[in-house]
Amino acid sequence: MTTPTSHPFYLDCDTGIDDALALAYLLASPQADVRGIGTVSGNVSAAVGARNTLDLLQLAGHAHIPVALGAHDPLVGSFHGGAPHVHGTNGIGEVSLEAADAELVPGTAAEMLVRLAHEHPGQLRILAVGPLTNIAEALRLDPELPRLVQDITIMGGAAFAPGNITAVAEANIANDPEAAAEVLAADWDVTLVPLDVTMSNVLEESHRQELLAARHPVPQALGDMLGYYFRFYESQFGRACSAMHDPLAAALAVGGVSAAVAPVVTVDVDTTDGPGRGQTICDLRGLYMDYPEQPGARCRVVLELDGDFAPHLVEVLQSFPESTTAAVAVGAAVA
Amino acid sequence: MTTPTSHPFYLDCDTGIDDALALAYLLASPQADVRGIGTVSGNVSAAVGARNTLDLLQLAGHAHIPVALGAHDPLVGSFHGGAPHVHGTNGIGEVSLEAADAELVPGTAAEMLVRLAHEHPGQLRILAVGPLTNIAEALRLDPELPRLVQDITIMGGAAFAPGNITAVAEANIANDPEAAAEVLAADWDVTLVPLDVTMSNVLEESHRQELLAARHPVPQALGDMLGYYFRFYESQFGRACSAMHDPLAAALAVGGVSAAVAPVVTVDVDTTDGPGRGQTICDLRGLYMDYPEQPGARCRVVLELDGDFAPHLVEVLQSFPESTTAAVAVGAAVA
Repeated sequence: MTTPTSHPFYLDCDTGIDDALALAYLLASPQADVRGIGTVSGNVSAAVGARNTLDLLQLAGHAHIPVALGAHDPLVGSFHGGAPHVHGTNGIGEVSLEAADAELVPGTAAEMLVRLAHEHPGQLRILAVGPLTNIAEALRLDPELPRLVQDITIMGGAAFAPGNITAVAEANIANDPEAAAEVLAADWDVTLVPLDVTMSNVLEESHRQELLAARHPVPQALGDMLGYYFRFYESQFGRACSAMHDPLAAALAVGGVSAAVAPVVTVDVDTTDGPGRGQTICDLRGLYMDYPEQPGARCRVVLELDGDFAPHLVEVLQSFPESTTAAVAVGAAVA
Repeated sequence: MTTPTSHPFYLDCDTGIDDALALAYLLASPQADVRGIGTVSGNVSAAVGARNTLDLLQLAGHAHIPVALGAHDPLVGSFHGGAPHVHGTNGIGEVSLEAADAELVPGTAAEMLVRLAHEHPGQLRILAVGPLTNIAEALRLDPELPRLVQDITIMGGAAFAPGNITAVAEANIANDPEAAAEVLAADWDVTLVPLDVTMSNVLEESHRQELLAARHPVPQALGDMLGYYFRFYESQFGRACSAMHDPLAAALAVGGVSAAVAPVVTVDVDTTDGPGRGQTICDLRGLYMDYPEQPGARCRVVLELDGDFAPHLVEVLQSFPESTTAAVAVGAAVA
């Protein structure tokens, strides 16, 4: 057995329960070497997301990974206040983590991304699981970014699936449609992980119990957070379970799971003020002919997975070593 | 066996090959008593559609059914010239029919619809298989129309399915989004028959041959027209076959086929000038819970059929009697 090649990763997130799962997945994956993390307002404010990220990194024994504060407001308008009904008021399901000793690094998330891209030319991989404000700002800071970056994987949008903020818009894209339009129009290879796959690959209570029974405090804390998340998703699915938005994007980015159906198509973002605002308009008219090639298209839209994601996710998260450096104090859920 | 109750119908169409199939289906259905037909620009101009309708009625031995000329232009903008690559320059696949003796009746299609609604209060059923300009004009002429009409079935839109004019817009709605928005906002029970079912219920060459082998000149002529239609759809499906847009809406309207999945949901029409213009934004977020009731929603969106449509369509069209009054001269296809 060969050791998988490790790639430098920049993670952009709005931590968030499923962001926490994505972060933990990356940290537990030998294919990913997380070199920097930027936060953005979405599930919570960029500042709260940064605090959660630092605390999680310390719990995981990775307090050395730099975290930069990103955009508080989208390119147009202002931050709407987050989704406490989904993620809790603290963003991580009212679970209390020990406060990290580490501080945020100086500079913005966009500046960190540009710097990392120059440090790893042609190698850096981006995983963006929040609104795309920081990525758009980085593109404005350095229009050469697409040439420097290997690829970008985005959790966001809805292709055939319904939206989760409006009938057609998904939260990450709808929270900053103008940024998403700029990012999807840039000249790089994008993998879009939309609700089509994240709502059809669900974590059940049995999986959550496996996380709670793990020896490492990170999967234990994630299992705790998922209790809150499950209660929200009960209103969507009619049972205690949850969608797996951000960790699925992480797993696709590192190759832990692969796509069975993922046509490369043109994608427009609706930036009007009409009823479609925030929709990712994916040109899937090739459906009836197994998606013939679309000249000039650069966006790979993941529509179906190859295999079952939840057992894989649990297995990876359980693989956190019994670390002596990791903090072991995990507060009980208070929700 | 009891004779099905026959309902008075108003048909609004842009004849068109599949409009011709829908008209023939209605004429062959004892559940439908077609009291009037209005035409609108879409597949062809309203005037050419009216001519085709009159010629088909004569061929079918129903020259007594009144046909009124409807709107040439949509509510906003002007008629784009039709879809000769789909329907042929004459709208019926270059098949030549004997010119009808009957003339158009005086007045507009919208006026005819309003008059018929008053003549059959609470009973008139509308089948609209073209752009919705005439229906919107009728609503403006008489805002009481929804109260007078039993129901309206519309071939149009795309729910989960891709569009056929843009990535998200279907032709009938995209040809007059403003009219569609007015019609879908009116206070009546709408059944929307979108591409979701019309693109997944396909007529194959074997079905076409059955029509060509029928004894009556109407199914023979339709089989001829379908030769042209099949050639267009080969670019969509990769084989000679065709979607069944308008006749499927006709069959759902008369109850010849029924829906297996058809949630009643709110539907917005995108009337912006953005990339989603003409999209029917159906709120299908209830997907994951078998579509719970949406208070106030009036639009039944047909997503899946109960049964196989093509054999039913062929059977109904073959049921045209060997009429002595029907003209028998059907020109050969010249395409």
